[in-house]
Amino acid sequence: MSCPFAKTQRSAPQRTPKRVSFERPPVYAVIDEAPICHVGFTTPNGQPFVIPTIHARKEDTLYFHGSTQSRLLQAIASGDPICCTFTFLDGIVAARSAMHHSMNYRSVVAFGSGYLLTDQALRQEAFRLTVEKLIPGRWENCRQPNDAESKATAIAALKIEEATLKVRTGPPNDIASDLEGPYWAGVIPTLTHYGPPEPAVSQELPAHISELVS
Amino acid sequence: MSCPFAKTQRSAPQRTPKRVSFERPPVYAVIDEAPICHVGFTTPNGQPFVIPTIHARKEDTLYFHGSTQSRLLQAIASGDPICCTFTFLDGIVAARSAMHHSMNYRSVVAFGSGYLLTDQALRQEAFRLTVEKLIPGRWENCRQPNDAESKATAIAALKIEEATLKVRTGPPNDIASDLEGPYWAGVIPTLTHYGPPEPAVSQELPAHISELVS
Repeated sequence: MSCPFAKTQRSAPQRTPKRVSFERPPVYAVIDEAPICHVGFTTPNGQPFVIPTIHARKEDTLYFHGSTQSRLLQAIASGDPICCTFTFLDGIVAARSAMHHSMNYRSVVAFGSGYLLTDQALRQEAFRLTVEKLIPGRWENCRQPNDAESKATAIAALKIEEATLKVRTGPPNDIASDLEGPYWAGVIPTLTHYGPPEPAVSQELPAHISELVS
Repeated sequence: MSCPFAKTQRSAPQRTPKRVSFERPPVYAVIDEAPICHVGFTTPNGQPFVIPTIHARKEDTLYFHGSTQSRLLQAIASGDPICCTFTFLDGIVAARSAMHHSMNYRSVVAFGSGYLLTDQALRQEAFRLTVEKLIPGRWENCRQPNDAESKATAIAALKIEEATLKVRTGPPNDIASDLEGPYWAGVIPTLTHYGPPEPAVSQELPAHISELVS
């Protein structure tokens, strides 16, 4: 079971409804499990942008790639402050009271500033990390970038300076006077999984793909 | 089938790999289907924040709710520029070349500025829209907010001034010289659905919950 989505979403609900952590191991677990993140930056005239993108991580550094013309890549590489958020929606919390409806979720909000990666060995490693994050085992099972492709790709690195994990789990938190009311209450889990691969080639599924979706 | 996630994710792949739209109906379809969004704002010292939250929409206005102490609500209500992004990851695109790996996705990036909603009738309507967006049919099947709860809740409205939908669908876009290579290529769909409800009360599932998860 290497599907990254399912690991913690199916864990039993806990009674602790909200937790905050600044510890790096649980922060990194969410970052590594998240297939995409939302990157926030601010233009010089003060307009915030929030752009979804693919990321990879090694130690305390995030890697982002894109066209050398990409505004997102330029913003990350500029050294201006960046916020990068990784979110899982784990369930809808239906309370007896409208007020206590909520979501079960895990979310990391990370802050840092970035720079353009120019060292060729580090760039190649970031490229590999990104492909391996998408599909473990893929790097050795696809054609690796040639010089022209590498030159057309910008890679930005961002050192995580500060990061917070927030988690809500468990049942609704209704107040005592609502507990005997007539309304149904509970959690409706949201589950994400991989569907059957849609091949673009007539070829048996290789192991790294069948393992991903199993 | 009222599961909001599944409607378009399971549609057949199209050959057009990327589309951009500024038309409001397809933009609103993604906003309404998305269970959460990521709101971007910038603090006075220039730090961008990206915070996941629940939203509701009516016509060209988004509604957000939270504690009156919430920094996110205060930021939206401040009138400063806001970016609000709604994203679905629909599949992982495995290309023959590392370079052409990608994601199939739908994403709306919306801009606007907000204000605090103070009119009691509009506040109540925004509260209703939010609960109904979480679970259609829920508003009449839970205890509605009392005065104290209403006073503790800030609701911010944000008029969408500009919004862009970007969509990638379909198979990998490898270059011609890679097509005859040895590598598997294709799309691995990511599917999201509701799991079996986890009741907090011993009661038969009401229709609005069983319809949601069916």
